[in-house]
Amino acid sequence: MKISSVKGTRDFYPPQMAVRNFIADGWKAASRRCGFEEFDGPIFEYLQMYQIKSGDEIVEQLFHLTDRGGRDLAIRPEITPTLARMVNEQINALPRPIKWFSIPRLCRAERPQKGRLREFFQWNIDIIGEESTLADAEVIFCSIDYLRSTGLTPKDVVAKISSRKLLAALLKNLGLAEDKLSVLYPILDKKAKIPAEAFTEMLGKEISDSNVIHTIMKLMDLHNADDIAGLVNLNEDAKTALAQLQDLFKTLNAMGIGEYCRFDMSIVRGLAYYTGMVFEVHDAVGDLRAVCGGGRYDNLLKDFGGPAMTAVGMGMGDCVLEILLRERGILKNDTLATKTLDYFIAVADPTLADKAVELAAKIRQAGFSCEFPYKTGALGKQLKQASGYNARKTIILGQEYIQDRQIIIKDMTTGQQQVIAEQSLSL
Amino acid sequence: MKISSVKGTRDFYPPQMAVRNFIADGWKAASRRCGFEEFDGPIFEYLQMYQIKSGDEIVEQLFHLTDRGGRDLAIRPEITPTLARMVNEQINALPRPIKWFSIPRLCRAERPQKGRLREFFQWNIDIIGEESTLADAEVIFCSIDYLRSTGLTPKDVVAKISSRKLLAALLKNLGLAEDKLSVLYPILDKKAKIPAEAFTEMLGKEISDSNVIHTIMKLMDLHNADDIAGLVNLNEDAKTALAQLQDLFKTLNAMGIGEYCRFDMSIVRGLAYYTGMVFEVHDAVGDLRAVCGGGRYDNLLKDFGGPAMTAVGMGMGDCVLEILLRERGILKNDTLATKTLDYFIAVADPTLADKAVELAAKIRQAGFSCEFPYKTGALGKQLKQASGYNARKTIILGQEYIQDRQIIIKDMTTGQQQVIAEQSLSL
Repeated sequence: MKISSVKGTRDFYPPQMAVRNFIADGWKAASRRCGFEEFDGPIFEYLQMYQIKSGDEIVEQLFHLTDRGGRDLAIRPEITPTLARMVNEQINALPRPIKWFSIPRLCRAERPQKGRLREFFQWNIDIIGEESTLADAEVIFCSIDYLRSTGLTPKDVVAKISSRKLLAALLKNLGLAEDKLSVLYPILDKKAKIPAEAFTEMLGKEISDSNVIHTIMKLMDLHNADDIAGLVNLNEDAKTALAQLQDLFKTLNAMGIGEYCRFDMSIVRGLAYYTGMVFEVHDAVGDLRAVCGGGRYDNLLKDFGGPAMTAVGMGMGDCVLEILLRERGILKNDTLATKTLDYFIAVADPTLADKAVELAAKIRQAGFSCEFPYKTGALGKQLKQASGYNARKTIILGQEYIQDRQIIIKDMTTGQQQVIAEQSLSL
Repeated sequence: MKISSVKGTRDFYPPQMAVRNFIADGWKAASRRCGFEEFDGPIFEYLQMYQIKSGDEIVEQLFHLTDRGGRDLAIRPEITPTLARMVNEQINALPRPIKWFSIPRLCRAERPQKGRLREFFQWNIDIIGEESTLADAEVIFCSIDYLRSTGLTPKDVVAKISSRKLLAALLKNLGLAEDKLSVLYPILDKKAKIPAEAFTEMLGKEISDSNVIHTIMKLMDLHNADDIAGLVNLNEDAKTALAQLQDLFKTLNAMGIGEYCRFDMSIVRGLAYYTGMVFEVHDAVGDLRAVCGGGRYDNLLKDFGGPAMTAVGMGMGDCVLEILLRERGILKNDTLATKTLDYFIAVADPTLADKAVELAAKIRQAGFSCEFPYKTGALGKQLKQASGYNARKTIILGQEYIQDRQIIIKDMTTGQQQVIAEQSLSL
């Protein structure tokens, strides 16, 4: 009986697994370079948990299940709610700042499309309990530090940075009420993703004054913070937010990633939960979804029954990233070996097959990777097998072994051969 | 609003995550030493897939879900069906033997108890397309090679090995019909797990002849293959199976793990799908569930719509293993650091805080892990922070830097300090 995989999921054959590991290993290395500790949670949580942060709309995107006890559960579509739950549960025992990273497998019941699958991996980094813009800078730095380590330059990717606090202050200065803001964020977030007309129409449904709409449209196009004052009066809140942003850019420059970063008022992020700096990294060409996104959030722990504590974080999925790495030639089909060996043992005389097994076991016990042929055929075929496995060295057991307990060691890169006593093999 | 985690799942705070990584890293290293390539599949598959190998009973143990298209899906309770599906889909493109490993996250809706959770990780290794007992030996070797690498000795764990082929031949010799065997396997498998009376009673329901039951009970207690002939006549099938087992033990001895291995007729494995060698690794004391189990299976690929192709594999969960590693003192609470740093930068003069940020970014870009304090307090407090992060070295920025652009490097192990020019820092 033949059954296929479920649409929107991926099978990781060894070549695809090598790519997944290449990406995840890079994420882990960047996290550790920047001092983040790894955590993880369960693959499913109570369904209700996902409604707290993201509202009822999220339920449609969830793979939900009911267990035998009748509990409503869901496969995690994101890990931030789990992070909030876990931190709250040990809030008094955890030294601050809490700097954690995770690479969860996540599932969303969306329509599969380019860069968006139903199952994916997402790198998350979060700093909890640190108000200073240094923490904002750390999160952006770590994201860029990873991308830079793959070989992506400022010509390939750009971190677009703005501030919810600044945006909120400006919108209020334009006469919009506080409770209108959380309705406007998801609309403003769509600006780059939908046609201009559709965007204006959506704004028009929420704002009656066409002058205000006009000013917002102009604000959204700003790439220089100095130009804001020409469009809207800066009240105290806006001035504070602007000063913080300028402080952040100063730090990013000191960190040597200024070239990757720029101010962009159109970065809003859809979710209501952001309260300060917001950012997204995009490919410079701009034909892909965001590579990653994040920002500061002040109320999440509290919303999950914990204390008021500020935090800043970032999430980067593997799907868009992989497309980008391939487009830039960093990932090629032949870049990553699925198998490498320290030693392959070839058998030139079939009576030595048992000896090959014994030697391979010894080599493995010494901590090296090693394989031997299950069937001893022609030597040339075995050497070909060794090459196919990317063996560094091949040990050949033949007449020299039968006569003098000597083995031939062939360096598979240079082709050079050396005959040594078996006991001289340094493991 | 406070929501808890779901019963039977685990939160991996950094210390628990370090243990999970310690186990998974060991599994990966052993797999690669023995030449296995990594693969993985989706976290959910069509529900039906799990009924093919394990029958309808498995459905009760599944977390199943219905997606928006009305498809019946299940979170994977094991990865072998996925393996069979994936291999079948590329059967003509994959070079043989296929030697694959995976460390899937699996979920089973069971009652949580010691060594058994609703969500766990399981190391799987499989060799597909190789009939030789060398492949059986490789799978047992790799399992033991891992356990040995943690420090477990033959006094701690034992691989109990038997053969379904042998058992089947002997049971048939006792007059039992072929179609009775698959009913008997799950019962025989329970021998060590239930009281003797309950076991005899279960056998009595399937076998009417009390002499046959008596002989089976005696067979199950055998630890020396030579004693079989004293209980049952060995027909040709039994002789072949016995010779294969003896061949296997010869190879395991040559591989240097003979001390870990012993013949044990009571190892049956419950699932019908095993067709040859079967084995389980148990703790020597015998008070835990099996650490791992596996064997040869000939029909799985065919059952999943593929060709007839033999295979042999093993699965090892993380829960029982972790208990064992702790009981043997290999894992202690203070064994694993959740965070280590190459450098910590301490700031003896608050005017140098920006310089610390800049230097940390440079050190990270060079590939080293580095942290700096978000708040510059007393130097002693910063050095304490560096120790807490297990920093190898602390760079101190103070008067020497202000006057001569010199930095102090403190080796955190020896306590020795060195003053060097900033440019001399070799990264």
